[in-house]
Amino acid sequence: MTSLYLPILLGTAREGRQSEKAARYILEKAKHQAFETELLDVRDFVSVGRTEAMEHPRAQQWSHIMTRADGLIIVTPEYNHGYPGELKLMIDQIYKEYTNKALAVCGVSSGWTGGVRAVKLLVSVAHTLKMYPIRNALYFPNVEMLFNEDGSIKDPSYEKMTQTMFDDLVWLASALKYKREESH
Amino acid sequence: MTSLYLPILLGTAREGRQSEKAARYILEKAKHQAFETELLDVRDFVSVGRTEAMEHPRAQQWSHIMTRADGLIIVTPEYNHGYPGELKLMIDQIYKEYTNKALAVCGVSSGWTGGVRAVKLLVSVAHTLKMYPIRNALYFPNVEMLFNEDGSIKDPSYEKMTQTMFDDLVWLASALKYKREESH
Amino acid sequence: MTSLYLPILLGTAREGRQSEKAARYILEKAKHQAFETELLDVRDFVSVGRTEAMEHPRAQQWSHIMTRADGLIIVTPEYNHGYPGELKLMIDQIYKEYTNKALAVCGVSSGWTGGVRAVKLLVSVAHTLKMYPIRNALYFPNVEMLFNEDGSIKDPSYEKMTQTMFDDLVWLASALKYKREESH
Amino acid sequence: MTSLYLPILLGTAREGRQSEKAARYILEKAKHQAFETELLDVRDFVSVGRTEAMEHPRAQQWSHIMTRADGLIIVTPEYNHGYPGELKLMIDQIYKEYTNKALAVCGVSSGWTGGVRAVKLLVSVAHTLKMYPIRNALYFPNVEMLFNEDGSIKDPSYEKMTQTMFDDLVWLASALKYKREESH
Repeated sequence: MTSLYLPILLGTAREGRQSEKAARYILEKAKHQAFETELLDVRDFVSVGRTEAMEHPRAQQWSHIMTRADGLIIVTPEYNHGYPGELKLMIDQIYKEYTNKALAVCGVSSGWTGGVRAVKLLVSVAHTLKMYPIRNALYFPNVEMLFNEDGSIKDPSYEKMTQTMFDDLVWLASALKYKREESH
Repeated sequence: MTSLYLPILLGTAREGRQSEKAARYILEKAKHQAFETELLDVRDFVSVGRTEAMEHPRAQQWSHIMTRADGLIIVTPEYNHGYPGELKLMIDQIYKEYTNKALAVCGVSSGWTGGVRAVKLLVSVAHTLKMYPIRNALYFPNVEMLFNEDGSIKDPSYEKMTQTMFDDLVWLASALKYKREESH
Repeated sequence: MTSLYLPILLGTAREGRQSEKAARYILEKAKHQAFETELLDVRDFVSVGRTEAMEHPRAQQWSHIMTRADGLIIVTPEYNHGYPGELKLMIDQIYKEYTNKALAVCGVSSGWTGGVRAVKLLVSVAHTLKMYPIRNALYFPNVEMLFNEDGSIKDPSYEKMTQTMFDDLVWLASALKYKREESH
Repeated sequence: MTSLYLPILLGTAREGRQSEKAARYILEKAKHQAFETELLDVRDFVSVGRTEAMEHPRAQQWSHIMTRADGLIIVTPEYNHGYPGELKLMIDQIYKEYTNKALAVCGVSSGWTGGVRAVKLLVSVAHTLKMYPIRNALYFPNVEMLFNEDGSIKDPSYEKMTQTMFDDLVWLASALKYKREESH
């Protein structure tokens, strides 16, 4: 089995987005893992209206990425207890590419809730995409106070939680990959 | 109390959108009601990124509409068991304007489920906007087969269901309007 | 208009339930408000199987309470990201009695999330009961550390949040009560 | 790898429960599959209050079943857009036993919605149990008209949908089982 490819998707296009800090933190930590990854920015992919989007070169690029991917780490803020519109536009551009892949949905919030409500709405969406979301994804409550200026995280407990997320995601993604390859 | 203003928002920007038929049907029926209404199209309002959007003339227009509105009828398809991204982008442009207004979320689907799952995700979003969603909104399952070419609906049972939706929405919107005006 | 009746429902029957502290705190604060209230304990009402329950004297008592009530404050823990089974059994015993009443769903958790996910599942349930849930209900994260032995709360910011909840609930409940009485 | 064990859980204790027909239909079809199964009835397991339940012989039996199980098929009605209380009480009795198992949540309803809303609330619960719910579970809308008196189903399209559910569940359950056994 070749090494796993688990890209990270930053799910907000807003100016001043704090979720970028969380996504970059995860990217940094992922570099020391056995899987392959990269940071995807919703700003580079999103457009309004599926018909156009499907023919758009950027939607094709997204399709190629998810075809190759064994799973996905979404980093999403919570806007009004829901997922950002631009993230859903990006998700809805493709469909089959998600089948039987692993998912980690990480929530970000200015307040204390860590975006858990938006995460749950995405878990509901993932259910129909035939993606399997792990429980132990990361939450970043109070995000404005969580990171140092150099991008490192102030709370040392994230070290272990991040490793748990990676371990659980790799566990599930490799189980699914093995079975997908066996099924072909 | 002046008459109620209850606009209808078509929540998808996709080409070939079937939800437009449902929205136009509701608009037609609403013309015979005592409240004032109009059809809003998400295509005319949406843009990506809140900072820009808030300063955008169209976001200002949306703010003016909802400031004046006593409630809202959203007509939304279900994409992957969730709400369309463009609809959420539009909702997230403003905030205070929704406070203590009534809401009806109508679901549309190609299949048999009527979009009830997307409706529930929007009910969750409405909860934080301080909007109050009524139960008896309309569902349009199997939408491709539901309308005649002239836009009329084939199933006669919608006549009564539509009146119930209007009655319940007017009931709630006027209760809230009376109290809002009393509170000022 | 007679004074509002807004009972508080403790939604867990588990031994050692921490939510009782939150419910008793709300009850204590409510005594200084203009509305009438009392504490209801799910232990006194719940039974399995609707047919039996509907004929059961306790279900009849619950029906009488909600018939008279203008709204409800539910205090619920989150068990496995959902609402407790016993709370749902109690809710499902009656139906029409909830129509056009106000609701506040307060979440309780041992961890940092405050039970917001269970609250959202109940918001989804309330939507079909024709109840209208306010946004500014209370959350009690880290509940084991939140209360003194005498039942008072350690965090002084709850004083103002509790008043906001009461104000918003009374605002909505009285708007709905006025309209219900006008409609008769 | 030994053969898979995928029990079916009937998730309502109400008298006159229509979901029993759906559960028995699935059981009948499952007999021709390669996996092992049996029908579990929530009536035989449920009790109120976790502390008591955990020490109760029936909770121990449930623990033994799920320890051995490779996945679960839940058949649930939708009561007020949510899951039945007795089903949640049963689920909450145990915890670790669910880890990394497959799940199919089948919805049942008197009306046309097939219980999809209750299914989504259970998908949200499953997410924290570390269970992985497949998309292609069965829905039984209009259940009162769906079955013949001998328990057979009137709509021939269920034949293929049921096989798809079994295939997808076996695919996922065997992927997870292989990995669980490899991890030990």
